[in-house]
Amino acid sequence: MERLHLVSRESRARDTIVQVGDVKIGGGHKVYIAGPCSVEDAEQIGEIAQAIKDSTHILRGGAFKPRTSPYSFQGLGQEGLCLLREAGRLAGLPVVTEVMSEAEVEGVADSVDMLQIGARNMQNYALLRKVGAQKKPVLLKRGVAATIEELLLSAEYILAEGNTQVVLCERGIRTFSHTYTRNTLDISAVPILKQITHLPVIVDPSHSSGDWNLIEPLSKAALAAGADGLMIEVHNRPDQALSDGPQSLKPEKYRALVKKLNRLVCLLEEENR
Amino acid sequence: MERLHLVSRESRARDTIVQVGDVKIGGGHKVYIAGPCSVEDAEQIGEIAQAIKDSTHILRGGAFKPRTSPYSFQGLGQEGLCLLREAGRLAGLPVVTEVMSEAEVEGVADSVDMLQIGARNMQNYALLRKVGAQKKPVLLKRGVAATIEELLLSAEYILAEGNTQVVLCERGIRTFSHTYTRNTLDISAVPILKQITHLPVIVDPSHSSGDWNLIEPLSKAALAAGADGLMIEVHNRPDQALSDGPQSLKPEKYRALVKKLNRLVCLLEEENR
Amino acid sequence: MERLHLVSRESRARDTIVQVGDVKIGGGHKVYIAGPCSVEDAEQIGEIAQAIKDSTHILRGGAFKPRTSPYSFQGLGQEGLCLLREAGRLAGLPVVTEVMSEAEVEGVADSVDMLQIGARNMQNYALLRKVGAQKKPVLLKRGVAATIEELLLSAEYILAEGNTQVVLCERGIRTFSHTYTRNTLDISAVPILKQITHLPVIVDPSHSSGDWNLIEPLSKAALAAGADGLMIEVHNRPDQALSDGPQSLKPEKYRALVKKLNRLVCLLEEENR
Amino acid sequence: MERLHLVSRESRARDTIVQVGDVKIGGGHKVYIAGPCSVEDAEQIGEIAQAIKDSTHILRGGAFKPRTSPYSFQGLGQEGLCLLREAGRLAGLPVVTEVMSEAEVEGVADSVDMLQIGARNMQNYALLRKVGAQKKPVLLKRGVAATIEELLLSAEYILAEGNTQVVLCERGIRTFSHTYTRNTLDISAVPILKQITHLPVIVDPSHSSGDWNLIEPLSKAALAAGADGLMIEVHNRPDQALSDGPQSLKPEKYRALVKKLNRLVCLLEEENR
Repeated sequence: MERLHLVSRESRARDTIVQVGDVKIGGGHKVYIAGPCSVEDAEQIGEIAQAIKDSTHILRGGAFKPRTSPYSFQGLGQEGLCLLREAGRLAGLPVVTEVMSEAEVEGVADSVDMLQIGARNMQNYALLRKVGAQKKPVLLKRGVAATIEELLLSAEYILAEGNTQVVLCERGIRTFSHTYTRNTLDISAVPILKQITHLPVIVDPSHSSGDWNLIEPLSKAALAAGADGLMIEVHNRPDQALSDGPQSLKPEKYRALVKKLNRLVCLLEEENR
Repeated sequence: MERLHLVSRESRARDTIVQVGDVKIGGGHKVYIAGPCSVEDAEQIGEIAQAIKDSTHILRGGAFKPRTSPYSFQGLGQEGLCLLREAGRLAGLPVVTEVMSEAEVEGVADSVDMLQIGARNMQNYALLRKVGAQKKPVLLKRGVAATIEELLLSAEYILAEGNTQVVLCERGIRTFSHTYTRNTLDISAVPILKQITHLPVIVDPSHSSGDWNLIEPLSKAALAAGADGLMIEVHNRPDQALSDGPQSLKPEKYRALVKKLNRLVCLLEEENR
Repeated sequence: MERLHLVSRESRARDTIVQVGDVKIGGGHKVYIAGPCSVEDAEQIGEIAQAIKDSTHILRGGAFKPRTSPYSFQGLGQEGLCLLREAGRLAGLPVVTEVMSEAEVEGVADSVDMLQIGARNMQNYALLRKVGAQKKPVLLKRGVAATIEELLLSAEYILAEGNTQVVLCERGIRTFSHTYTRNTLDISAVPILKQITHLPVIVDPSHSSGDWNLIEPLSKAALAAGADGLMIEVHNRPDQALSDGPQSLKPEKYRALVKKLNRLVCLLEEENR
Repeated sequence: MERLHLVSRESRARDTIVQVGDVKIGGGHKVYIAGPCSVEDAEQIGEIAQAIKDSTHILRGGAFKPRTSPYSFQGLGQEGLCLLREAGRLAGLPVVTEVMSEAEVEGVADSVDMLQIGARNMQNYALLRKVGAQKKPVLLKRGVAATIEELLLSAEYILAEGNTQVVLCERGIRTFSHTYTRNTLDISAVPILKQITHLPVIVDPSHSSGDWNLIEPLSKAALAAGADGLMIEVHNRPDQALSDGPQSLKPEKYRALVKKLNRLVCLLEEENR
């Protein structure tokens, strides 16, 4: 493990606190990132942002969507970026979106507060280097077949370029078990990562499970295991969503969930004092 | 899924409460099962039982040990059973142990309060039928490559023989991820199983992780995800244990953990009211 | 790997030749084992045996069937054994069948020429010990999540009881890939096993793939990779089979396949001279 | 599966023949692609090219290397491209190399005869689109956790941009089995892909196994299963290689292997007539 220099607690014992706008992540600061899978139109993203703003720290929404098929909805692109930023501005929330192409990194970095690297691009080293050269914080998702060490080494690529503002995200791995969930949430990765690295670690229960019914128990489990936050897909009309409808919570369910999660966080924090 | 008759909530909506001695499992009753991987001698099992009795509902200890190699320690057998029973009696705890052979089922059932079917034997149908014909409750562990449906159908074998007192146990699955953990705890299995079946569902964080450092976060995650209890390996001298030392907690650490877990359970219960 | 004593080439460099009736397996002797998944009635097993006898060394057929659900067809039991033996006798073929229960080992051993341990029971150590104490050769199938070392150690259990007549069988492992095949044939296991152990190694392309369309390419691949033989499911009326119909070859297709395989074996043998 | 338009045999029943320089791949034309993992210097790549030219159709060599750690050798870059091209020119072989970055696609396409997309970038859609817009044939490697459908849909991205010259490459998937091999060669993928798509399918036994000892049996298995060719790592001094030494064949062993493989191909072709 000597190859883990910058991301390791041996190089920095104290938790890194990543700052996104006014929001702090890590070092005891828990974060809720929420929003739709894809930005679909001004009304959709605006309505969702308003509905969840009091329970959310960062607004998410995809403008450039990595899709398995070239014939699936690919996102609104540049227009989606503008709609996301405007919705965030009106709701008073910083925004995060995925960037998929080296050529788009700078443009996206200018428009949003945090850059997301998706699971499929976790080992796209040209892209990692490019976001490492930006001044914006990065949300790095674990690939579906990436080991913990590979995730950390991908983060190392970003830090090695000078960008230390990286948040890691466990979002489920690919296993033989696929009947009831899209992926298998590797809950053990949370405490293991927290032991090895000073970077914040959050969990995405939506992609892990692919089923909105499982968001509540998995969110609680993630926080109980020590995660620094959650990224949850919320949609105002899940049945009409252009992508990931079945795993999206409605805003009112999301708000009720956050209330419960806050009480859990409270108890867990008391214990650590 | 029509093949799931007896174990399904469609056949019985209400939670089954499994009774082991005076201990209830399921239907809101949380259970802590603890003890060493193997019963090694009278002093060891007795000392552990006394040290954990106030934080434990059921004492575990292996007398017949399924070992990958025929040359590894295979357990004390019949003698181990007696030592376990006596340690449980003195500590006022019912006891559970694994049974590996059809020929031994009746003898073991006479000696202990609960029969465990290990992960390797989850699809040993002759053994399942045999424990199904006993009057003792059964702890059925999920195989390392078993789907959720396969686990439920193995339980169905037991219920079909007339024994409805079955507790399911998630103990980690085998995935590509193996550097930091022995297995991958499939935390999502807990809420999924609870939705499908009326049988109690517990989690074994010790075998899931293979690392005592991970027992606390995984135990909390399991309860937060809705598990009806935990099975945790405890040893008075982990460094001298004949099996599974690295994943065993010392009694004092275990007791401190249970205190924290009790507060968590308390909070989670409040919410469900 | 020091735990591998008896099965290792370090303890015996030369290939073990397993003898089943007059049939030799290993040490250059290739074997074709074929027949239906389950023995269904006298006519079915008799018709299949006659149809394949000239292209087959050993007749297979299940009498005791390990089924995921207790409500699936469980095999004809003792009656199936008799039908299989009689069909083998009339066709002049030795027979192999699976044994699932310790209690049945001796009875089955009296009726057939070779005992099969199925994938689900690969780590049923009580059963392994029991077949190890018989005088009949054993066909040991790899568990769907068993490592190569675990397979070898399960064979070690049998050899340690005094029975050295063991054939190993690769039959597919459980991976994330499940859309087009039931399991993933681990073809690399063949040359790896052949390097480590002196025991014969065969491949079951039927269970690996679950699709009769794949039997030919996988059978060729197995022999090309160095397998000592194949176990192939053949049924006279696949669409009416009580189990595993979709992966069963019709007798005429099987005979045509064996002709092609014989030419391949011939070429491969020439090269090794 | 309706999403598979251009790559499917439903859109084109006959095998696509991909042409790389004068070399044809597919439609009965078998191809051997060989060379070192990385181009290290002029002497190394030149010596290897000369040593294998009579047994090889296309020379491979990495100039831009995707490495898990940012601190590992990253390839010679542009200089490596020139050395590879020159070595190919002198040996009379077309050359293939991996391209990792959108920004480098055009430059690399100008220098080599075939572009490789590595396993880590199989779902880097920006890169797929970019190579789809070039006039050079593409070698697309399967990701370690990619399903067969995902591989085909990634190829669809390339074809949808107008480039129909795509060769698919199975190179091993990530499973629980990792002790003896780096990955698990999914041999069944070969006949399955050949059934679904008209594109050529080759196998990389070097990355599948990570062990030069396994190259011969896996190469034979791949051809026996119907592969249109092989990609094999060859190094003149494996013990001094800057990357992938343990899985590289020496040139003389490679040449001897190709002789054997040619005889096997010959026999397999006869059968299909």
